[in-house]
Amino acid sequence: MIVPIYLENSTKIHYDVTIDQLPKLIFDTKVAIVTNDTISSLHLEKLLGKIEAPSLHVITIPDGERYKNLATIEKILDELFTHKLDRKSLLIAFGGGVIGDMTGFTASLYQRGIDFVQIPTTLLSQVDASVGGKTGVNNRFGKNLIGAFYQPKAVYIDTDFLATLPSREFGAGIAEIIKMAVMFDLDYFDYLESVDFSDKLSLERVIQRSVELKAWVVNQDEKEAGIRAVLNYGHTFAHVIENETAYKQYLHGEAVAIGMVMANRLAVALGLLSLEEETRIKALLLKHNLPTSYTIKDSEAFYAKFFLDKKSANEKIKFILPKGLGDFEVRDDIDKALLIKILNEYSGDQD
Amino acid sequence: MIVPIYLENSTKIHYDVTIDQLPKLIFDTKVAIVTNDTISSLHLEKLLGKIEAPSLHVITIPDGERYKNLATIEKILDELFTHKLDRKSLLIAFGGGVIGDMTGFTASLYQRGIDFVQIPTTLLSQVDASVGGKTGVNNRFGKNLIGAFYQPKAVYIDTDFLATLPSREFGAGIAEIIKMAVMFDLDYFDYLESVDFSDKLSLERVIQRSVELKAWVVNQDEKEAGIRAVLNYGHTFAHVIENETAYKQYLHGEAVAIGMVMANRLAVALGLLSLEEETRIKALLLKHNLPTSYTIKDSEAFYAKFFLDKKSANEKIKFILPKGLGDFEVRDDIDKALLIKILNEYSGDQD
Repeated sequence: MIVPIYLENSTKIHYDVTIDQLPKLIFDTKVAIVTNDTISSLHLEKLLGKIEAPSLHVITIPDGERYKNLATIEKILDELFTHKLDRKSLLIAFGGGVIGDMTGFTASLYQRGIDFVQIPTTLLSQVDASVGGKTGVNNRFGKNLIGAFYQPKAVYIDTDFLATLPSREFGAGIAEIIKMAVMFDLDYFDYLESVDFSDKLSLERVIQRSVELKAWVVNQDEKEAGIRAVLNYGHTFAHVIENETAYKQYLHGEAVAIGMVMANRLAVALGLLSLEEETRIKALLLKHNLPTSYTIKDSEAFYAKFFLDKKSANEKIKFILPKGLGDFEVRDDIDKALLIKILNEYSGDQD
Repeated sequence: MIVPIYLENSTKIHYDVTIDQLPKLIFDTKVAIVTNDTISSLHLEKLLGKIEAPSLHVITIPDGERYKNLATIEKILDELFTHKLDRKSLLIAFGGGVIGDMTGFTASLYQRGIDFVQIPTTLLSQVDASVGGKTGVNNRFGKNLIGAFYQPKAVYIDTDFLATLPSREFGAGIAEIIKMAVMFDLDYFDYLESVDFSDKLSLERVIQRSVELKAWVVNQDEKEAGIRAVLNYGHTFAHVIENETAYKQYLHGEAVAIGMVMANRLAVALGLLSLEEETRIKALLLKHNLPTSYTIKDSEAFYAKFFLDKKSANEKIKFILPKGLGDFEVRDDIDKALLIKILNEYSGDQD
């Protein structure tokens, strides 16, 4: 199946997300594959068997979020210059979100921009990172603080790559899928409660719907001035949790799962979400072994870290909250007292 | 006078280039001015008197092309994060082309893109660098090899800043102006032969026409797939000259002046330009004390360096040549033998 992506808001971009067996890819320009050592050892041979190009280089970087920085970007750029890639050359991002973000960012920078193609190999990057054009790296001030909006020429999603994905990482992808359903689509949420993710065609359908929803959002708001911020449901809390745990304890999707549960508490307190709906979301997260609790040692310190988040502009924090299942509300008028009260609920051990 | 810039080819961007006394600038967001130590000591006080903003930081970097690299970009980014600029904040580029390129690039990277405004203080940056959205830095492989296409929100050109500009730098700006006239506009070339650059209104008119021509080109071809390459008239040779002289002997505009003279020799050999037209161009360059000669020690080595130029794709070198005055031809079929013959004409000292 193919999901066509049209970005016509601030640009005139069109590309296709193909969800199927990876097809034969034939290029008439120099190609460089950017991947990491883990994916390389598992799947590079398969990929190389699918690509034809007059020249092909493989650039392997170490696996892990801690290498997602400008120093790694410079190393990749150096390799591209050394191999004399030109302005018509193409990069292929082959890996998860970190590889996709860094390859897209590198492509945006190299000679002010060359084409790139995404072949995401994790569930999270298949449903999330491969649509939307957010690229970039972390620095000592936080995550994804340096980067570019830059769209791929094509995305190829082959669920066969997920066979080797650790189950925790699979769950992290499901967290983002649940996020999309809660925000935008009650039918999709219902479907997620019953679907068998181990069935290949069902999984492809789940991915398809998530990509469609994301594309619908991004098309309305490529530069995140409005509705795209809704994709950050759970993230305001998740970023603080990731910061407090130095990005070591939780995968991003796991932190988002906890963040959604916290946001839901707030939504319930505000009368936006019923207790029953809150319970359904939590149950779906737990079904996929996602964490839903976190011990906050110091609510004031946790609260203060909201303001480090790059999504806050002019000192106001936006909270993305579910309004029932399948709809949302963005609030930037939440009292500190209410937030502290919610955070205090997490001051002891939870289930 | 105001030159409206519309980029509607691949984006929907509109901004104005205002050529006049610098107006009062009032912002309701955090502002950071990026400038260098030279411009800061000469003109910062005037600029600060014109700006109103809730918070204003000045970031001063060392003056010079050798600081145009990723390390400087990282330092600027660090200052922005330290001062907690947010996604609605604004950068002001206050200086010449290097400051403009680096400030625009930093703005494109900071939290994936914040607004920036250009206040160019050299003739070259007023006519050239402030329109077109090319931003970036150099690295060990060459000039401007890492960057982004990123447009300013507004450009303010005040020729009063040119009062302190060294005369060589003024001439370097005129070289780019002559370039535009030779490529696109015979009437403009005629006007340039007679105009008094020391008259303020005449100078503003000259700048206006150059900005208009550049905007016309960029609007057709923002990403330099076609006609925008014509702006590189003289540059194919100039880049090699700058490389051979380690960017020390000539200002960029001076190297372009020599490059245009070399390109003209080639155009004459191909029957595109008459000897009389060649002489008129050279005379206009000489009138502004621009260099028109260069000693090539090794024509083969010089030739080989054409291929280092980032504008060449798939091993073909494009030469941008004048077709009479006011028109151009792009040729990628020039025999090596002919080029070597032209280059050999520069093997001794010239006038």
